[in-house]
Amino acid sequence: MTAVNETAQVNADIPVRDEVREAVHEAARRARVASRVLALLTTAQKDAALHAAADAVLAATETVLAANGADIDAARATGTEESLLDRLRLTAARVEGIASGLRQVAGLPDPVGEVLRGSTLPNGLEIRQLRVPLGVVGMVYEARPNVTVDAFGLALKSGNAALLRGSSSAANSNAALVEVLRGALEAQGLPADAVQLLPSADRSSVTHLIQARGLVDVVIPRGGAGLINAVVRDATVPTIETGVGNCHVYVHSAADLAKAEKIVLNSKTRRPSVCNTAETILVDAAIADTAVPALTQALQAHSVVIHGDLPDMVPATEADWSEEYLSLDVAMKVVANIDEAIDHIDRYGTGHTEAIVTDDLAAAREFTARVDAAAVMVNASTAFTDGEQFGFGAEIGISTQKLHARGPMGLPELTSTKWTVWGDGHTRPV
Amino acid sequence: MTAVNETAQVNADIPVRDEVREAVHEAARRARVASRVLALLTTAQKDAALHAAADAVLAATETVLAANGADIDAARATGTEESLLDRLRLTAARVEGIASGLRQVAGLPDPVGEVLRGSTLPNGLEIRQLRVPLGVVGMVYEARPNVTVDAFGLALKSGNAALLRGSSSAANSNAALVEVLRGALEAQGLPADAVQLLPSADRSSVTHLIQARGLVDVVIPRGGAGLINAVVRDATVPTIETGVGNCHVYVHSAADLAKAEKIVLNSKTRRPSVCNTAETILVDAAIADTAVPALTQALQAHSVVIHGDLPDMVPATEADWSEEYLSLDVAMKVVANIDEAIDHIDRYGTGHTEAIVTDDLAAAREFTARVDAAAVMVNASTAFTDGEQFGFGAEIGISTQKLHARGPMGLPELTSTKWTVWGDGHTRPV
Repeated sequence: MTAVNETAQVNADIPVRDEVREAVHEAARRARVASRVLALLTTAQKDAALHAAADAVLAATETVLAANGADIDAARATGTEESLLDRLRLTAARVEGIASGLRQVAGLPDPVGEVLRGSTLPNGLEIRQLRVPLGVVGMVYEARPNVTVDAFGLALKSGNAALLRGSSSAANSNAALVEVLRGALEAQGLPADAVQLLPSADRSSVTHLIQARGLVDVVIPRGGAGLINAVVRDATVPTIETGVGNCHVYVHSAADLAKAEKIVLNSKTRRPSVCNTAETILVDAAIADTAVPALTQALQAHSVVIHGDLPDMVPATEADWSEEYLSLDVAMKVVANIDEAIDHIDRYGTGHTEAIVTDDLAAAREFTARVDAAAVMVNASTAFTDGEQFGFGAEIGISTQKLHARGPMGLPELTSTKWTVWGDGHTRPV
Repeated sequence: MTAVNETAQVNADIPVRDEVREAVHEAARRARVASRVLALLTTAQKDAALHAAADAVLAATETVLAANGADIDAARATGTEESLLDRLRLTAARVEGIASGLRQVAGLPDPVGEVLRGSTLPNGLEIRQLRVPLGVVGMVYEARPNVTVDAFGLALKSGNAALLRGSSSAANSNAALVEVLRGALEAQGLPADAVQLLPSADRSSVTHLIQARGLVDVVIPRGGAGLINAVVRDATVPTIETGVGNCHVYVHSAADLAKAEKIVLNSKTRRPSVCNTAETILVDAAIADTAVPALTQALQAHSVVIHGDLPDMVPATEADWSEEYLSLDVAMKVVANIDEAIDHIDRYGTGHTEAIVTDDLAAAREFTARVDAAAVMVNASTAFTDGEQFGFGAEIGISTQKLHARGPMGLPELTSTKWTVWGDGHTRPV
């Protein structure tokens, strides 16, 4: 609470920000009230609400596309580049995809109420640890309007109220979608405040959200490194760091070169802009004479620019080893052995996904044991670190922190736990 | 990292603090190196080290007691009250207790390597989620020197390096104990930097520890509300909030009064200074005429001072409902029904332990479902919220936050997870 008051003092001479703070806090208080209702809903009630929301989104396609058109026009007018416009753009097919995402979440198992541990103690007390909702979950995210609906669906299924702080560039799209979702909840007799959109015109709403300790239970930022670092640095509310990935593929001396080429290419070129893409290729010195030319040729044939110390590469600087290119660029380095590979990963990696290509069992075991990351791959592409690929059905993000959740986060990661203890007049001896 | 640099700028004109910062960071870097070794130890190696440490502590009893004597003398010279002196004091019997605590941890199951989930995906990839150590764990705690050894033991068994920031009043005791532990580790061929004591003369070492983001994986404060709030507020390293307990016992209209009296008395008087003690008794209006006098008489017979709005009570103010007395004081309030009881708990509780006394099944189910706390008791004393009582064998603290761990924390709560993915040249389709 002190942090919140300090913020208030700092901003005392900026009335507009105080209004934003009040708006965020008021939304959080309403979310808390709604969360008390959500926590007690049956799975059947939540699934019915998700299907109703899907129907409502589909029925509102024209309104949503009109609102999205206004966002696209505004973005184009300020010279936004085409790749960003594409992330922002909705089409009838994309709206259908958003609705079917909600139906997919309705089909997932409900994490709430799952008994994680339990026993009858020697004194007869029956103790059980149950999954319960977190309560009020804040999300801060960038352009894609589909995240608005995805986050609502995952939060609702896990019994949480969602406070959504989307990008100002998607403000009209997000407002239209949230209005539809709130209407669908009300029609089901559920609290509309289960989902609320926070003001996005002013950046201070992010600050107020992440400093609303006691009002908000967790904030999950989804976006680039700048957003995530700012949230983690300034937050007093607990946060889950997501999605910053400086991922490596280590081609070990005992690698099958054909597999290595496939894995390196897939890890780098499948979708270069996502966090599980490989950014540095480490090649063992023992096979560098054959592997480096083969990998270089394969990557260059797919228009990848290679940064490194060898001929035909863009000269690499120290900064290249830390760079999350998120583009058709990759760094390449020859390492003496598995120790140097792991040391390099320890030093420059972000703990997201690290891969080894090898046919040597001992090397595979050593790499998986020693590398400290959310996911460690053996003879598989880094692109597999993904909630849907892991069989979670949907994901809210990929955690790169060690507390609470690490790696792809599905519904169980949006819950806390509660112990219940049933007795019959039990007291504890002194 | 930004936060660390900002700290450096703020303190740039205070050389003594910069030295403390460097000492903390250097210790954290050494802890990281040690943690890489600890993470790979077998259970047998860790258990052998724990037994060796127990032997070493016992063998050093005289040295440890001499150091403790110096702390006691210094504390007495500054007029420390007897109850605090008792928390600080070591005896031969207490040193034996500390050593047997280490042997007890050696006997607990090793959480590291436990497979939490796993499957073979449709494409043949084998994925597994394993428990792994957190890495470098910081502890900030108050007077009791036994916490130094307990924290070391739990950290070692879970494969973590421990950075210990104890109270300056226990500086000699803690230094003697840590020297013994480090010697025992070295004699076993293990890195002594698995346990390090941070400087306690200057309060800034706490700040530097909790802001060493990237160097320290988690900080767990154990102590009073002031310490915990300061840590949670100023930390950039993830923290686990522990042990602030404003616990309630709600005596429902369908309570068995004999059980209610036993449970209320045990919850308040067993050990009033610990976090699971009851601080407010809520009595249902339907039975207030008989229950209030009976409970009042029973509590007063045990020297408990009652704060409330009824005759024979110290008049209660709004502050009493939030007060964590940690003494033989308790607040008492008559509530209209279960709704008012739960609303009161929602408003004033700290989410630690809440109890209902009732013979009515529906009321018990409603209370356990609706109350948002780490532990909810039915017909049982709040004193049962405790790692040893729950069968964990040992506890590092009681978390009152919702992320990562909630309630008593044992060895599994000192771990993170890692996904391993084994394939045979697998790539992900576009």
